Formats: sequence, C-alpha cells, structure tokens
Amino acid sequence: MSDAASVKKVVLAYSGGLDTSVILKWLQTTYQCEVVTFTADLGQGEELEPARKKAELLGIKPDNIFIEDLREEFVRDFVFPMFRANAVYEGQYLLGTSIARPLIAKRQIDILRATGADAVCHGATGKGNDQVRFELAYYALEPEVKVIAPWREWDLTSRTRLIEFAEAHQIPISKDKRGEAPFSVDANLLHSSSEGKVLEDPSLAAPEDVHMRTISPEEAPDQPTLMSIDFEKGDAVAIDGEALSPASILTRLNELGKANGIGRLDLVENRFVGMKSRGVYETPGGTILLAAHRAIESITLDRGAAHLKDELMPRYAELIYNGFWFSPEREMLQAAIDLSQKEVSGRVRLKLYKGNVIVTGRESPNSLYNQELVTFEDGAVAYDHRDAAGFIKLNALRLRTLAARKNRAEN
Amino acid sequence: MSDAASVKKVVLAYSGGLDTSVILKWLQTTYQCEVVTFTADLGQGEELEPARKKAELLGIKPDNIFIEDLREEFVRDFVFPMFRANAVYEGQYLLGTSIARPLIAKRQIDILRATGADAVCHGATGKGNDQVRFELAYYALEPEVKVIAPWREWDLTSRTRLIEFAEAHQIPISKDKRGEAPFSVDANLLHSSSEGKVLEDPSLAAPEDVHMRTISPEEAPDQPTLMSIDFEKGDAVAIDGEALSPASILTRLNELGKANGIGRLDLVENRFVGMKSRGVYETPGGTILLAAHRAIESITLDRGAAHLKDELMPRYAELIYNGFWFSPEREMLQAAIDLSQKEVSGRVRLKLYKGNVIVTGRESPNSLYNQELVTFEDGAVAYDHRDAAGFIKLNALRLRTLAARKNRAEN
Amino acid sequence: MSDAASVKKVVLAYSGGLDTSVILKWLQTTYQCEVVTFTADLGQGEELEPARKKAELLGIKPDNIFIEDLREEFVRDFVFPMFRANAVYEGQYLLGTSIARPLIAKRQIDILRATGADAVCHGATGKGNDQVRFELAYYALEPEVKVIAPWREWDLTSRTRLIEFAEAHQIPISKDKRGEAPFSVDANLLHSSSEGKVLEDPSLAAPEDVHMRTISPEEAPDQPTLMSIDFEKGDAVAIDGEALSPASILTRLNELGKANGIGRLDLVENRFVGMKSRGVYETPGGTILLAAHRAIESITLDRGAAHLKDELMPRYAELIYNGFWFSPEREMLQAAIDLSQKEVSGRVRLKLYKGNVIVTGRESPNSLYNQELVTFEDGAVAYDHRDAAGFIKLNALRLRTLAARKNRAEN
Amino acid sequence: MSDAASVKKVVLAYSGGLDTSVILKWLQTTYQCEVVTFTADLGQGEELEPARKKAELLGIKPDNIFIEDLREEFVRDFVFPMFRANAVYEGQYLLGTSIARPLIAKRQIDILRATGADAVCHGATGKGNDQVRFELAYYALEPEVKVIAPWREWDLTSRTRLIEFAEAHQIPISKDKRGEAPFSVDANLLHSSSEGKVLEDPSLAAPEDVHMRTISPEEAPDQPTLMSIDFEKGDAVAIDGEALSPASILTRLNELGKANGIGRLDLVENRFVGMKSRGVYETPGGTILLAAHRAIESITLDRGAAHLKDELMPRYAELIYNGFWFSPEREMLQAAIDLSQKEVSGRVRLKLYKGNVIVTGRESPNSLYNQELVTFEDGAVAYDHRDAAGFIKLNALRLRTLAARKNRAEN
Repeated sequence: MSDAASVKKVVLAYSGGLDTSVILKWLQTTYQCEVVTFTADLGQGEELEPARKKAELLGIKPDNIFIEDLREEFVRDFVFPMFRANAVYEGQYLLGTSIARPLIAKRQIDILRATGADAVCHGATGKGNDQVRFELAYYALEPEVKVIAPWREWDLTSRTRLIEFAEAHQIPISKDKRGEAPFSVDANLLHSSSEGKVLEDPSLAAPEDVHMRTISPEEAPDQPTLMSIDFEKGDAVAIDGEALSPASILTRLNELGKANGIGRLDLVENRFVGMKSRGVYETPGGTILLAAHRAIESITLDRGAAHLKDELMPRYAELIYNGFWFSPEREMLQAAIDLSQKEVSGRVRLKLYKGNVIVTGRESPNSLYNQELVTFEDGAVAYDHRDAAGFIKLNALRLRTLAARKNRAEN
Repeated sequence: MSDAASVKKVVLAYSGGLDTSVILKWLQTTYQCEVVTFTADLGQGEELEPARKKAELLGIKPDNIFIEDLREEFVRDFVFPMFRANAVYEGQYLLGTSIARPLIAKRQIDILRATGADAVCHGATGKGNDQVRFELAYYALEPEVKVIAPWREWDLTSRTRLIEFAEAHQIPISKDKRGEAPFSVDANLLHSSSEGKVLEDPSLAAPEDVHMRTISPEEAPDQPTLMSIDFEKGDAVAIDGEALSPASILTRLNELGKANGIGRLDLVENRFVGMKSRGVYETPGGTILLAAHRAIESITLDRGAAHLKDELMPRYAELIYNGFWFSPEREMLQAAIDLSQKEVSGRVRLKLYKGNVIVTGRESPNSLYNQELVTFEDGAVAYDHRDAAGFIKLNALRLRTLAARKNRAEN
Repeated sequence: MSDAASVKKVVLAYSGGLDTSVILKWLQTTYQCEVVTFTADLGQGEELEPARKKAELLGIKPDNIFIEDLREEFVRDFVFPMFRANAVYEGQYLLGTSIARPLIAKRQIDILRATGADAVCHGATGKGNDQVRFELAYYALEPEVKVIAPWREWDLTSRTRLIEFAEAHQIPISKDKRGEAPFSVDANLLHSSSEGKVLEDPSLAAPEDVHMRTISPEEAPDQPTLMSIDFEKGDAVAIDGEALSPASILTRLNELGKANGIGRLDLVENRFVGMKSRGVYETPGGTILLAAHRAIESITLDRGAAHLKDELMPRYAELIYNGFWFSPEREMLQAAIDLSQKEVSGRVRLKLYKGNVIVTGRESPNSLYNQELVTFEDGAVAYDHRDAAGFIKLNALRLRTLAARKNRAEN
Repeated sequence: MSDAASVKKVVLAYSGGLDTSVILKWLQTTYQCEVVTFTADLGQGEELEPARKKAELLGIKPDNIFIEDLREEFVRDFVFPMFRANAVYEGQYLLGTSIARPLIAKRQIDILRATGADAVCHGATGKGNDQVRFELAYYALEPEVKVIAPWREWDLTSRTRLIEFAEAHQIPISKDKRGEAPFSVDANLLHSSSEGKVLEDPSLAAPEDVHMRTISPEEAPDQPTLMSIDFEKGDAVAIDGEALSPASILTRLNELGKANGIGRLDLVENRFVGMKSRGVYETPGGTILLAAHRAIESITLDRGAAHLKDELMPRYAELIYNGFWFSPEREMLQAAIDLSQKEVSGRVRLKLYKGNVIVTGRESPNSLYNQELVTFEDGAVAYDHRDAAGFIKLNALRLRTLAARKNRAEN
C-alpha cells in the first residue's frame, strides 16, 4: 500500500470539489500514475457535468472519466433492502451515509476491472467510519486491490497547506472554499449529514443553518399534509396511489418530509474506529418511510417474524454502520429479513405535521389483523376464554416451581 | 381454581368502578367468600376515597379495605428500571400498561399474606395480555395461590347481563356506564391506553376524543418549551435543576408533554395470547424521558455497553410485555442493564414543540465524548491515522480471503 | 374440539402398538367416526405390515390405511437442514424426537385433504412436548382442523383401565404389554429416547438396558474405526468416498456409532410445557454427523457467518424443540443458515473409538484456511505485523477512554 | 509507542525461557531502559526460581524481579466465572489461553504502578490473538501506558537471527532451543495448547507427541473412574466430598482427566486478527468441569435463565477470546450470569472412561426437578391435562391466522 512506485492506474471517487481535486493532483504527482475519475449521482443534489470539466482541466483523459447516475440502483438495491429491516443504529440513526459507501466502492471496483486499473482511492479522513466502509467493500470485492487513502498518507494536514497545494497546482478554488468550512457535509438521496467544527460541542444546540434538507418544525406549515404509501413485499411502490420508481419515491418523500419539518436528528454516536462523534442528520423521506414500513408490517407480519426481526436489527444495523455490507453475515441476515417481507404489502395512510409522522390508517389484502378475534365479545371464532387459563397455567409452571423452592428455603 | 367451595378469602384488585363492583358482588355470591378489596393509586388520575365508600356500601368490612398510594414505588421500582433499558415493544410501545401489572399483583399477594387470604382476583378480560401479566406475577410470588378470573368464568358475557346483575344486586351505576363504552381505557402515571370498539378498524384514524392525556400537536402552543432533565445512574432526578421524587418527575414530565402534544401513539401490536390488536397510547412524560435517557447515555455509555443493551432490549421488552417481570431472565437482564448505568449521570436539555422532543444539549462530568479525538486535525491525542490502516487491514482480512476463494472459483 | 358429534373422519397417527390401537377403537366408539390410519417408517426399526393387519382387524377399510416409508424425506428435508445449524437444545440434546413430529403431522394433514377427513389424532400424552409439536404443526398447516388428543380427553388414565378397554374391545395384547413398561420409548432414524419410570430419579444412573441403539463405550471394540464423510453444501453425501442417499448415510452412521459406543446422552431437560424431565437419548449417527459438520465448517465457513450461526443456534434449536418448525421465524433462520452453507463442501476424516468422535483431518476445495497467513514467519502474504498494532490501538480506543474516566474519577 | 527514547522502566511478562530472555536484553539495548520482570505461576508446570536466577544473570536488580503464584486467583477470579457461563468458543474451544492473558496483564499494570514504570512488554507474536488480549487489557487498566511488542518491532524475524542475538548477548541457550521447535506451546492450569509447524496442515492428524497434558483414550485404563463434584453457587467446591480450594480442584480434575484420556481437542478456529489457525488443545479438568456444571445447572436452573444463558454464551465467549475481559459488556454479561448461579449448588456424579465424561447422577437441595410433575399418572400436583390444550391453542393462534391467510391466497 505504501509502495507508491507500483501503482499504475487508480480509480478515484471524485466529487469535483476542492478536496478530491487536490487528491487527484496529489495522486498524479505522488504516484506518477494514471488517474480514472468516478463521479456518481446518488442524489446528493449537485450537478455532475462540472466534475467532468474539472477532471478534464486537471488532465484526465475523457476515457478515464466516469460519470453515472446511480440513484435508482442506490435506492432499489441498498436503501430499500435496509429499510426492510427497520434498521436504526444506536436506536436513532437511519444510516444514510453508511449505506451509500458500498455502492460507490462497488462501482469503483467495476471500473477498475473495466479499465485495467490496479488501485482505488477515496477521500475519506483518517478518523471517520467512511474510510472503513470504503476499504472493507473494496477488499471484499477485489482482495488484491491497492487502496490509497490520501488523508492517512499525505502531509496536507491543515487547510492552509491544502490550499497552498491547490494553488501550486492550478486547481481552481471557489471563494467559499478558501476558509475553513464551519462543518463538513455528506449528502445523498437518503440523507444529509453535518459534523465537525461548530457541532463539536454536544452540549450546544446545532445552529439552524447546518440544516439543508429540511425546514424546521417551527417553520413548517400549520396545515398537515395527508398522504399514503403503498408497499409491495416490503418496499414502497406508490405514493398517493401513483406508482413510482424507487428513486422517485424517495425523492417525493424527501419533498414531503422537508416541507413538513420531518427527519432532523441531532445525536452523539459511537464510531467503529473507537471515539464518539456528534452529528446532525436530516433524513426526511427515510423518516416517513420507516414509520410507514413499521405500520404496514404491523398488520401483515406475524409476531414470531416481527420479534425475530427486532432482535436481529441492532446487529444488522451495526454491520452496515461498520462497513460490512459485503459480508456473509449481512447477507445471511438479509436472507432472513427478505423472506419475512413476502406478504408485507398494502397501504399506509399518514399525516405529516410539523416534524410529526402520524399513522392514520393501514390496510392490506394480506392483513393478519382479525377484528373478530379481538372484539371483547366471545364470538364465533375459535377463541375460547378457557384456553387462556391453560395457557397461563403452563407458562406459570416453571415460575411456580421457582417460587416453591424459594418458600421452601425460607421455611 | 374451579373449586369455588374452597375459597375462603379473596383479595380483589378493586377500582371502585362498575365492573370491579360487579366482580366484588359476584365473588360474594358465587364463592360465598370474604372479599378484601385493594385499590391503588398508580397515578390513573382517579380519587380513591369513593372506592372505599363503595366497597363499604357493598358490604366489605373496613379491615378488609386496602387503599394505597403506590405512585412513588411504581415509578422508582418499575418504571425507572425499565427506562434504564430504553425498552420499547415492537419498536414503538413504551409498555405503560404492562409495567403496572406486576406491582398491583405484588401488593395483592402482600395483602393476601397479611390478611390470611387464599385467593386473588383481577378484572382483566379473557382475551388480553393483562390476565397473563397478573397471573404470572401471582404465581411467581405465591405458587399455591388460587386465582379467580371472573371474565373467564362467569356468564355475564354481555353488557346487558352485566347491568342486569348490577341492578339485581343494588350496585350503583353511573349514567355514563349504562351504555357500551365506545372504547376501553387503562391509565396510570406512565400512560393511558385506549382500545376496542371505535378503534377496532386499523384502517381508520383514531378519533380525537379517545385521547385523554395529551392535546394534539395541532392544538399545542406555537412557542416551544425549553427544559432540562438531570440524571443520576440512569434515573431522572431533577427537572430544570429542581430535584424531585420519581413520581413527581414523571408527573411534571406528563404535564410538559401533554401541553406540547407529545407522546401519542396509534399502533397495531401482537398480543402474547396470539392475536393482533389496535391501541392508542399516550405516554407524554415517558416519551420525553426516553429521548432524554438515550441522549445522556450517548455521552456517558461506552459503545460496547450501548450495543449490548440495544441487542438485549427487544427481549427485555418482550418479557415485560408478556408478563414475566418476576422471572429469573428479566432479573438477569436487569442486572446487566443496571450495571451499565453507574456512570449515566448528567444533564440533557430539550426543546418540546408540537409533538417533537428535540435534544438541544447534553453534558456530564462522566462524559466519554472527547472533542480532541474527533477533531479533524491531528492533535496531541493518541490517535495515529496510520492505526486506522492496520485496523481496516485486519478487519478486511477474512473478507479478502473470501473474495480470493470466489475469484478462484470463477477462474 | 370437544364437540365429539361433529367429527366425521379422523386421520390417526397409528403405530400398530397397543396404545394407538386402543385410541383407534376409542375414536370409533367415542366419536362414532370413520378412522384413517397413517403409519410411517421414519426408521424406528419396526416393520409396518403388522400395523396394516392390525388396522384391518380393527375394522379399518383398506382405503383408509396409509403406510409410508418416509425415511429419505425425513433425513433430507428435516434432519439435514437442522444439522446445517449445528442445533443442540440446552447445550446437549440433538432434538431427535422433536424433528420427527412435524413430518408426521404434515403427512397427516396431506392425508386429511386426500381423504376428505376433518380431524387428526395423535397418541402423545398430556404432559409432554410431543402433543405441542404435533398440534402446532397441524394448525400451522390446516388452521380449521379438528384435533383429538385422547390422552387429554379420555378416562383411561391408568394402565389397568387401558388394558380393560383393550380386552373389552378385542384388541390383541402382546404379553409384554400387559404390565407397566419400565420406561417409555420413542425412536426414529435419528435417535431413540427413553424416559419415565426407572429413569425418573435424576440422581441415579440410567440402567444399561434402557439403551437400544448403542453398545456402551466399555463394550465397544479396542480398535478404533477410521472413516470419512464427504459434505456438499452443508449436507453429508458420502461415507468413505461412497455416495449415499440421505437416509442411507444416517443408517450407516448409526451402525458405525452403535458399534463404537457413540452417542449416548443422559440429561435433565426443560420441557416447553413447563417442567423438567429426565431422558436418555441415543443418537449414534447424529453425534458423528455433528462433529463432522463442525469440522468441515471450520475450514469453509467465514468467521462472521460462523459466529452469527452460533448466536442464532440456541433460538433455532428452541423453536424446533418447542414445535415451531412450521413458523415464519424458523423459516427465516433457516434461510440465513442455508445461505451460509453454499461453500460447506469437502471431506472430514474421523476416528471412532469407544464413545469418542475424533476429527483427524479436514480438507476442501473451498477451504478458507491459508497456511501462509498463519505461519510464524513474515511471508509474501499481505499480512503486515504493524497492521496488528493499529488494529489493537483502535479496538482499545474506547477502553482507554473508559479507563481515563475512571482515573479522573479516582483522582 | 515508537518513541524508544521515552521509555524509562518497562514491566516485562517474563517466563525465563529463551524468547523472553532475548526480549529482556533487546529492551535493555534498544530502549536503554530499566527492565522489571514479572514471572507468574498460572499452573503452566514450570518452576519459577530458574526464572529469577536467569533474570539476575541478565542484570535485573532483585527489586525488579517479581515472581508470583497466581494459581488461586487465576481459577477463582477468571476460570470459575467463565465456567459459570459454560463458555465455549466456536462450539468447542474452552478458552484456556484466552482466559489467562487478562490476569497476567492486570498484574503487570499493578507492578507498573508499584514500581513507577511507564511501559509494559509481552512476548506474543504479531499474528496471534494474544497480543490483542494483552494489550486490550493493558489499555483498559491504564490508558496511557506505553506498550512494547517486540515481535512487531524488531528485526529478529528468523530463528537464526534470534539465536545469534542471544549468543551475542551471552544469553544461555539450552540445547533443545537451538533448533526450530516443531510446534509452539502455551500452558496454564486450565489447559495446554499446541500450534504451528507440524500442526499447520489441518488435513493431517495431530501427532501423538504434541499432547502433554493427557494420555490418549486408547492408552487410558480399561476401568472407569467414578467420582463426584460438589458445586456452590455455580463453582466447584469439592471433589469426592472433599472441600478444596479452586486451584486444588482444577489440579485434581486435571489429574483425573489426564489419567482417563479426557479433554483433547483438535480444531481449526477463527482468530480475531482475521485468519484461521489450527490448534490442539488439552483441557482435561475443564472438560470434566463443563460437563458437571451443565449437569448441576440442569436440575437447579430455571428454563428461562438457562435459555438466556445459552443465547448470551457465544457473545460472552467471543469477548473473552477477542481479549475484551476488561470491558463493560463482558462485565454486564457476567452480572447476568452470576445472578443466575445463586442456586446452582449440589452434587454431580460422574464416570470417567477413556475420553468420556458420563454424568451418572445429579442432586441438589435446590433442585427444581419435580418427579410428581413428570410422572405419567395424573397426580395430586397442580397439572391439569386440559391446561395443555389451552396452552397449545393460544400458541397456535398466530400460526392458524397465518395458515388462514395462506389458504385465502390459494383460493
């Protein structure tokens, strides 16, 4: 990995921004190697064509510039499978950053193979989780790949030196990038995150202007928005009855969530690399989707399946957070989860109001809810009150045996 | 259990309402036994003295009337230990009804021993979870106790017959109890629940008037409420800096939650007795408490402890929901959870606004959050970027071995 | 269920023995219904034709007599999937009885449908687990089926009364069935179990003569038996290089185990119905198979998959023990387990000697074992000792933070 | 850590053997620092006084030589707590090496504090688990300690160079240490392990002469040994009725196991550092202890507690294997496990025979086994056969609802 001389061609995850442009140039100068840029639209809300121009400006051959719209693949093959699990990390975080990394890494490896490259490079820092997520995915897909992580290798360890390097290499610097950013940002179709600098003191509230995806509950309209989501086999397929593609669904949910001040989260989390960090996340569409998915499961999923899912979920979420998407154990859990979703179809009605996602109805042709069974009257259905007596007696048997031992010991 | 003749004295969980008054009289006439009434204040919001008068009216000797204020014990020994676990059932339900049953059962058994009674009786129906919770607790505490569950035994299976029985036995019936209640209610200091009748169709929104503990987010004030909760060893001990008893804390949190439209939940859940049911819960104070507890844990709890807690939680919550409070496995889990809370002390600041509980700050003398470790600059602290490379390489080793096998197989 | 009049035709799990013959006659006399007998060969080691004759003798029409050899289906679709999970209940029991019940129940329901019957009947007692296993399977496959469990319904509660009933109805009684059996037995191709009577005191050793499947280690030959098992995708497919069908493999392993005194187990277990019971199990082939399966997994299964399997296993085993084979949660776990077995192929060599199963070698084209990685010398392989330092440092980071807090508190 | 100049005094885990003697000298020459040697008797079966002499010979001041008999502490505070959990790693390994490391590390840190040292040093290699176990324990106890791991730092990477270094520094070399050892060994009172070199091919049987703690089953006597173990609160306290200290118990069990060919294990395991390795373990006493502990638990532990323990065990074992003894999550699990052991007292009788540990009886004043409950006859006890019907019906309810949905879909 440290053997610079041996790299011939490297596939760089390239955003077109200042940092990855510096990396691009640093790779050329340090490794004397050919650079392939890969720029993906995962719904981060930036145009991609400027990245192409900038790459060309920095000397990348057109054949070595890869720009792809991955939004559908991202939602269909990564976000939706994860939401089938109701995955939340540490009880709260919807894993918006974590779930995007494996897809980027996978495409880098695809391009490495297509272009005959021998190395990959990412712009994640040396203290975060993303370096782990990128690199575990790289290695899981291509075990002998060379991985270059500039932030762990170079000496551009301050903003000043980075800017100097950029200036020395004629890298264009937009004005707002000259100074230190007040916080760092990651964004994709599922969420945006902010962390660092002004957010580093967890005893202080996050400033309003770190939010980019949502208006605040206070600013949201006084009138609620009523809507519905249709599910098929655990995945959202329509909004307000209109069938939409996966990415279109999430886009639409993001708009609805944003407008109603939904999906903000300010938390301190435990990184895989060992320290605690504080982040502000905005997941407007995902927050609605999670509530709706739990609601449709509530009438279509059996208790045994539901409880097993709840017990497996923390492990599943931890695997994704830690970067083990491409691991046998994540795939095993996914197989179990996916099997449970066969009948998770139907419609959920929701009320969105100033940060609240309120379930107002759920219905399904596959519903396991049986009104006759719950009604207080003894009905025609096969529920005999006396069964409950036996059920309790046998469940109590071991507890009674324990109590008898205790009484024995005390007498 | 069915041997009516053998019951001499029975301790009845008596609310003073129509149903348990009918039970009282039915016990006297059916079992020809002495009845001891036990009426507890768990914060359900009803006065207890009317229950005393009504019991006397129905012929209970003063010595056989037990009325107790259990609010402090309830919160201190049941609610707070449960909140240390961040317990939620099926991802959502804060277990407000479940957690009250073991305490009532425990006091019934205490009174049974004090009065020399040989049986206990509750008013829970034959289709719900509460019968299980009461009876598992009875048996776990007194293995040879006789348990009488009138709703599973008698023939008063319609409202009409119940009213007839009441009239035949001179039981006072308040006007609003003559007809069928539009839904049934349970309440204590932690929550109130509504279920049945008008709520039985899960495709329909709950009517506004089933709510009794909270105003709706829409009705809540346009100005947020700012507040703080102090924790010691995992339990809330003060609000806005004012030290309060456990019950006083929950009472105050309920007021704050109610005023801000916080803590409503409308869900379909899976009962232990096997069917799905739909309930509307209001847990204003508990909802605030859970958010605050997670926040104080986020800076004081180690990752290993936090993740273990998250993995154990679904099981723990299921045990409480199913009525196994007095079981060795719940106590084992509690021991693990309680150990984790030794350092969970500090202050959490919150903003309450129209249904939202927003964490605006957390601080603790025991904080594990280390600003130096997260800052993007390499600092004086013992974090070397190169360590991350090794960390990733060894975590990747098995994945690389797997990938090599896959490549081998494909070539 | 108690409405005797309503049963028209019942499918009885019929062994041909005294007890189920009494049940057959009792069904005819009590329910006045047509009886269909189902007798299966699951490898219990009894001939089936006598059952046919006896059924005819008791008045069953030839069309209503079903006799099937289910040995291959039993091993292929029940035993082998379970062994993929390395399932053991309470750390020891290989679930030999538990795994046979779902198959018998499934075939009874198949026959119910084929014959237009409306009820099923089994001969399991009212205190054991088997009644639960049969009936949960019945209901999971045919929700409205009527279930008749004579041992919970009739009044033939002593051996004497049973014999009297048999004599009164001209049921042939072999001499050895006249008295009380010294213990009760269940057997199939996977195991035999003995329990009750002479085994009821767990402080006393089991008499030698309860064993029917194995000779004792003491009696086993002084020379070890060397052998090998080949696996494909987690299932045994050959012994000593000879490809065999599933049932043939288990049969052969049973012979080898029996001859070498392998597979005896004497334990006290916790029944699902709430009490402890003591059983003596003999699982000669299964004991060998489990050791061999773990051995082939040890070189072909990744750590992440292996550890997840180990964590899920107790739950999986409990589900099978409790009778939840046909449940969504068992199927979910099976999906996860089966996915892990794709590469579990190869050969395991074993030495069998007086009760011991000793692994002497394992090899696989899919092996993940990499001699170069473990060798003490630093080699060409991609393992840098310095990586270990980083790995440890980051794993230690949270522990160091905890220790620093502790030191702070103490100073 | 790499700042050699800064180390003033280092506490070395010193065995007195060639390798740690080379380390000792290497520390002196490389770090120019004072060396404190710590030599512990954990039951590895070697005399300690030669280590003192050798340390003196190598220039260590008498005050800097620490020699301690830790056998009682080892068994009482580490081995026994672990056996309360029935801990086995990957289904088989009794964690004999893993459990010794935290104690050695703890004593090194104690001595570091007592002597004012600032660094610790161990002799574990850079590819194994032991380096992780030592260092995680160091850091968990003393977060700012400097850790020296010579095998990751120095250039003595071949046997030849090591010997050369020893000769150059007048370190005595016993003849049998001149050549390459055919395998490497670790030993303590719980077990001995062998790995490497002749054992590196997992397809080949382990040579007989790697075993040092046990005779083979074949060589073991033809007569079984009958014995008993008494337990109190989960720990062994007496053998054959004779009360013994923890270390004496394990010593005696080792003798009995050795003589009867008990406790050999040949397996391929997954190391925390990422590769598979093959080891031969001998745990004669531990193997007996595990079987006996499970047996006494089988009559004294409630099902709920027992199953929770079984589910937690793999995680607990993994934590110990990976070196997280001093972690909050291990301590949480221990708290749960220890609570379960309060009533785990009584006597287990065993037959030891040629590799077999056969339970022949278990009895306890705290037994939960109730002969009346299991007996086939309906007795005086509170078990009503009809309860089983209700128990099954309610357990089946959700499965019937599922089946009804399936039937609905198919029609």
